[in-house]
Amino acid sequence: VSGGRSGTGSPAFALGIDVGGTFTKLAILGAGEQVLAEGRVATDAAAGPAPLVERVAVAARELAAGAGLELVRACGAGVGIAGLVERATGILAACPNLPGFEGFQAAASFGQALGLPVQVVNDANACALAEARLGAGRGRDPVVLLVLGTGVGGGLVLGGEIVHGVAGFAAEFGHMALAIDDGPRCACGQRGCVEAYLRSSHVVALALTIAARGQPPAGPALARALASGEATSRLVGEAARAGDPVAAAVFSELGRALGIAIANLISALNPAVVIVGGGVALAGEVLLSSARAVALARVVPPLARDVAILPAALGDRGGVLGAALLAFESAGPARIETGAR
Amino acid sequence: VSGGRSGTGSPAFALGIDVGGTFTKLAILGAGEQVLAEGRVATDAAAGPAPLVERVAVAARELAAGAGLELVRACGAGVGIAGLVERATGILAACPNLPGFEGFQAAASFGQALGLPVQVVNDANACALAEARLGAGRGRDPVVLLVLGTGVGGGLVLGGEIVHGVAGFAAEFGHMALAIDDGPRCACGQRGCVEAYLRSSHVVALALTIAARGQPPAGPALARALASGEATSRLVGEAARAGDPVAAAVFSELGRALGIAIANLISALNPAVVIVGGGVALAGEVLLSSARAVALARVVPPLARDVAILPAALGDRGGVLGAALLAFESAGPARIETGAR
Repeated sequence: VSGGRSGTGSPAFALGIDVGGTFTKLAILGAGEQVLAEGRVATDAAAGPAPLVERVAVAARELAAGAGLELVRACGAGVGIAGLVERATGILAACPNLPGFEGFQAAASFGQALGLPVQVVNDANACALAEARLGAGRGRDPVVLLVLGTGVGGGLVLGGEIVHGVAGFAAEFGHMALAIDDGPRCACGQRGCVEAYLRSSHVVALALTIAARGQPPAGPALARALASGEATSRLVGEAARAGDPVAAAVFSELGRALGIAIANLISALNPAVVIVGGGVALAGEVLLSSARAVALARVVPPLARDVAILPAALGDRGGVLGAALLAFESAGPARIETGAR
Repeated sequence: VSGGRSGTGSPAFALGIDVGGTFTKLAILGAGEQVLAEGRVATDAAAGPAPLVERVAVAARELAAGAGLELVRACGAGVGIAGLVERATGILAACPNLPGFEGFQAAASFGQALGLPVQVVNDANACALAEARLGAGRGRDPVVLLVLGTGVGGGLVLGGEIVHGVAGFAAEFGHMALAIDDGPRCACGQRGCVEAYLRSSHVVALALTIAARGQPPAGPALARALASGEATSRLVGEAARAGDPVAAAVFSELGRALGIAIANLISALNPAVVIVGGGVALAGEVLLSSARAVALARVVPPLARDVAILPAALGDRGGVLGAALLAFESAGPARIETGAR
């Protein structure tokens, strides 16, 4: 992405959209990769995609206007969604963590509502592109990303570009198996998926299991939250950072699963960096240092030599920034320079 | 690779070398991808790499002469070796299944002995390139390859090119874990690697275990071979094809492990084809149909849609042909056309 102005004199910019389970984020990115405006709307997934598309279109126009831009002059929009996005059509082919959106014609719907060319990709794929270009993966190649949240997403960037696979479904690292016959049940219906071990709901379930043993005892804050049913993976992460022994045991066990998952990706792809993001990763080094030790000890030694295992640098903005980067990319330099549509 | 003639009027050709545990194969490939000559020498791994390099150089010159060519006019040589090959230096950084070769400066040694520019890669990487261009992967992209033999090798071809990773060690699919805590011991020292389940020695071990149960009983031929200690994975494969119930049970169990390994690669890479080669795969459909059913049932459904799971088409010549293709590639079209060196 290089700076440039459209033929009409307005600066080149692109719209990024990241459809999450609770909120849908929007960002307007300038051609110099500066964020010109950011906002969000409720996803309200239960109501289905149509009302969301309308809300997003209204919010996007307001966001552009607030930045002194006309949305219709954007060189395009990129949309990241948690699911398997068919690249040729922009249709959501599967979305275990976004029920009601399966079959959603995302590219066509957003394109019509926004009046812009639209690229749709898996949200973690978009995030991987942003981390590779602007975040923890800068200057490294290949870049592997895991996002640990409600589900577990993945992204792979090779030679600066997202690896899509034959249909657009590559990098579903969350559904790789860590067990041949057993393991916890996953949202996809199988057992033993990386996601089944590392999604946020499993963090809480594991904390309950370990706390129920009584040994080690949970600290008072975590014990209260677990007893009241109000514990979240974020809270367990905070407890771990504060030294709670149950929370530490949770992340040590999760670190083992994460470490094996990372080792498998290192063996498969010999990446220069594996980036770990998402809400569960907010637990920080208590999780990451355990995973790093397991992963580096497991791979054939030369594979451990050139890989950094790092936290995501862009926080929860990776998806929306990556989506905007993708819109620039598909527009191409000529489009950015001339503003042609 | 396009046809072309050198400036001196001799046809463009390249040398391929595939260093295996027992034999080292050689092939001379014309620019039209036709095999002009083939041969092999004993590897004698225990004697180390130096005498092998000399044997290969002598054999290569004879092979070229026999085809009416001067080896020194080849546009280059490609070498495939079972191990982790450092791309920048052509050094063998690790080779659990070729002891005594660790640290072997393969590119420098072969280059000096042959008087040619030499590219060195992992043997299964070379095989994946050949299968992608000339074999079961023709017209499909991405191509994933598993080679089940003494070890388990892997290769990944994307956009027609080998994916090397940051240092040249990508596609070590054999050392991806299928178990979090247990599983059979692997040559790399870890437990539960794909290779630990699917290498040839494990086929025999599993046949012994299942036969020892007595139920189902082994057929007379397999029972004799197992009792005499002369069973090989090839023999167990033949017994399975002939309907031996113990051998069938072996490959059904192996099919499950192979199926999960393939499912993991499909989830990670959304390939258009997964090709399975190597001696263990000679068991044929008894292994592959079981693996196919497990793999396609395990992945998120849209990922099962576009992938073919096929036996290798080039038999045990994939490595040597891929190495020769690589030599053409690194020479580049200009070099092929002009014969410049």
